[in-house]
Amino acid sequence: MRILLVGAGGVGAAFAAIAARRDFFETIVVADYDPARAEKAAAQDGRYVAAQIDASSADAVAALCREHGITHVMNAVDPVFDMPVFDGAFAAGADYLDMAMSLSQPHPTTPYEKPGVKLGDEQFALADRWEAAGRLALVGMGVEPGLSDVFARYAADHLFREIDELGTRDGANLVVTDDDGNEIFAPSFSMWTTIEECLNPPVVWQDGDWHTTPPFSEPEVFDFPEGIGPVECVNVEHEEVLLMPRWIDCRRATFKYGLGDEFINILKVLHTLGLDSTEKVRVKGVEVSPRDVVAAVLPDPATVGPRMQGKTCAGVWVTGTGQDGAERSTYLYHVVDNEWTMQEYGHQCVVWQTAINPVVALELLARGTWKGAGVLGPEAFDAVPFLDLLTEYGSPWGIKEL
Amino acid sequence: MRILLVGAGGVGAAFAAIAARRDFFETIVVADYDPARAEKAAAQDGRYVAAQIDASSADAVAALCREHGITHVMNAVDPVFDMPVFDGAFAAGADYLDMAMSLSQPHPTTPYEKPGVKLGDEQFALADRWEAAGRLALVGMGVEPGLSDVFARYAADHLFREIDELGTRDGANLVVTDDDGNEIFAPSFSMWTTIEECLNPPVVWQDGDWHTTPPFSEPEVFDFPEGIGPVECVNVEHEEVLLMPRWIDCRRATFKYGLGDEFINILKVLHTLGLDSTEKVRVKGVEVSPRDVVAAVLPDPATVGPRMQGKTCAGVWVTGTGQDGAERSTYLYHVVDNEWTMQEYGHQCVVWQTAINPVVALELLARGTWKGAGVLGPEAFDAVPFLDLLTEYGSPWGIKEL
Repeated sequence: MRILLVGAGGVGAAFAAIAARRDFFETIVVADYDPARAEKAAAQDGRYVAAQIDASSADAVAALCREHGITHVMNAVDPVFDMPVFDGAFAAGADYLDMAMSLSQPHPTTPYEKPGVKLGDEQFALADRWEAAGRLALVGMGVEPGLSDVFARYAADHLFREIDELGTRDGANLVVTDDDGNEIFAPSFSMWTTIEECLNPPVVWQDGDWHTTPPFSEPEVFDFPEGIGPVECVNVEHEEVLLMPRWIDCRRATFKYGLGDEFINILKVLHTLGLDSTEKVRVKGVEVSPRDVVAAVLPDPATVGPRMQGKTCAGVWVTGTGQDGAERSTYLYHVVDNEWTMQEYGHQCVVWQTAINPVVALELLARGTWKGAGVLGPEAFDAVPFLDLLTEYGSPWGIKEL
Repeated sequence: MRILLVGAGGVGAAFAAIAARRDFFETIVVADYDPARAEKAAAQDGRYVAAQIDASSADAVAALCREHGITHVMNAVDPVFDMPVFDGAFAAGADYLDMAMSLSQPHPTTPYEKPGVKLGDEQFALADRWEAAGRLALVGMGVEPGLSDVFARYAADHLFREIDELGTRDGANLVVTDDDGNEIFAPSFSMWTTIEECLNPPVVWQDGDWHTTPPFSEPEVFDFPEGIGPVECVNVEHEEVLLMPRWIDCRRATFKYGLGDEFINILKVLHTLGLDSTEKVRVKGVEVSPRDVVAAVLPDPATVGPRMQGKTCAGVWVTGTGQDGAERSTYLYHVVDNEWTMQEYGHQCVVWQTAINPVVALELLARGTWKGAGVLGPEAFDAVPFLDLLTEYGSPWGIKEL
């Protein structure tokens, strides 16, 4: 297996650090728009090679694949570049993995009722081509989407006879402090992407179809395990809602993000002022996108790890009828402590938790345990070997009846 | 009287419209960095001449004064340019008026306890020079500061034997709607200046000295007259607190701004994220100041008038011992209805209310009713002729016992 890692930002660098401890691949070409970032991530392992790449160009992705005889393209750049990397991999005859899906477009007239272009639509539209060519595009293979979808598949295969709701629930008790120990506002994930997913109309799968709602709908306090505790969660547009119902029977699929009151308020204010906009505005002779400015004034999520404390939890709350015929309500989850990831890997827990899952998936593909062709989600594969290998990596998962 | 109006933005354009109905001056040179803006404001009156100016250059201000034989410079640009316009007027031997004062700098180590450089300090430092030259700089001569200071002087001369607190209180019930009639967030005054004054440490005069507090301190619900009703007010850095105690005996001087919950929340979020910062950040190859971006995404305050409804109120709540020796608590105020200013002048009420006061002051100076030398605030002059002339202009003031 010869991997092209596109993107050496927070998640890409953590991916490289995790993969460096495994022996299932021959080489990883670490490519980034910023050569210094690629060099830094590539320096840690003799099997790694650094390269420069423009991820907005499918031709550039294909050319780099051909130059290095790449078998698998691992997309770790901003989802805005999903399609060129996806297309470039296909053009070069490589398999493909990402941790998100192609972006959505709101419905032109009723954005808060009906979906427009859905997350992943552009990729699924090309599924036949991938299948006919015998190539695999494994989409949404991070932690959420990714591990959450594996949990859903596990619940469907081993815990439930009939599923009412697959409710992905994401929460954390992370706190970032400044040099004086004062708590500061510093998102642990790309602010650009967080705004994108939180202010897009949330999508819900219900009784055989997808619909949308206004942002921050259906607030709910979810009690997260392992000391994180109760966090206010709201509906957010997320890939699981589009993926899970394609392979798993369920009446309802939701994604609720434990943003907490403060973060929800901040996002609402940004939206009220129009600072979430990606359209450029003219400011004293230069043109900038307000959302890029918001991202630029905040600390880089890749650098906050040493000043962060707490745990992050990803999981799926499954309700329905258990294997024994009784009502069941179960949360399958994965908790990561920032102290542990910083000490073990030197990467903060949120990017680390995202990055470990595609490494596990690639190892299963290398072994032939997972195989397939077409555009597939993680729930299209057997969950058990994935969860076993994740545990073998030293990062076990949990299960809790609610 | 030959006036140079520096700045043809919202307030400058309203000044030109109000002055056009008066005959106390010979000419007004309307100058702006943007020649089109100057032309537009100058077009309405045969006594007006348009000019281009860079208000950051004292030399440019002085040169334009000399070119046109200017006797009075009316500063209507952003307070960041206060000093070059002030210095340029002095250099050219002209008198000077502004509607703010030179900017403050927070105390380097205890910004929320002690003032650093206070509002107006740079101007008052040059008072001797102005006085020696027999020239007048009338600073803070808008509505707040300005009319509020006139009210304070009136209360001291005619209503109170002893003053406990001079509490400027500013509130409104203005609402801006979009084309579909939905309420939108659109400040009626420069967002840049609003951030500046609201996030700077508020200053309070107490028992013979100035001190500062954290932003948004001492919240209080003040019940504004003429149907505006109760609005949450908080301490904000403002010129009155620096001006009034210099000429009027009082135990305490405060300025509280009726920002309302929503606006306070927005300002807090901007501050939390660092979007209030004026230091440039690098964003995808260009450099911008985050605060300029915030101002750029919001509707231009000069254009929201037609979509705005409601009234704005400026006034001073005076407490102490009345002329009869009894405790007294009186609010002296000036309310303007946006519908009226739009219909009568085509300018929204907040900028109109700011602009009318320097026109009144200039007319009193032209008549010789007001005269003086040095750097003086509005409370250095007799309040009665000012309030009478304001009423003559068609915009009466009110008084209410609390």
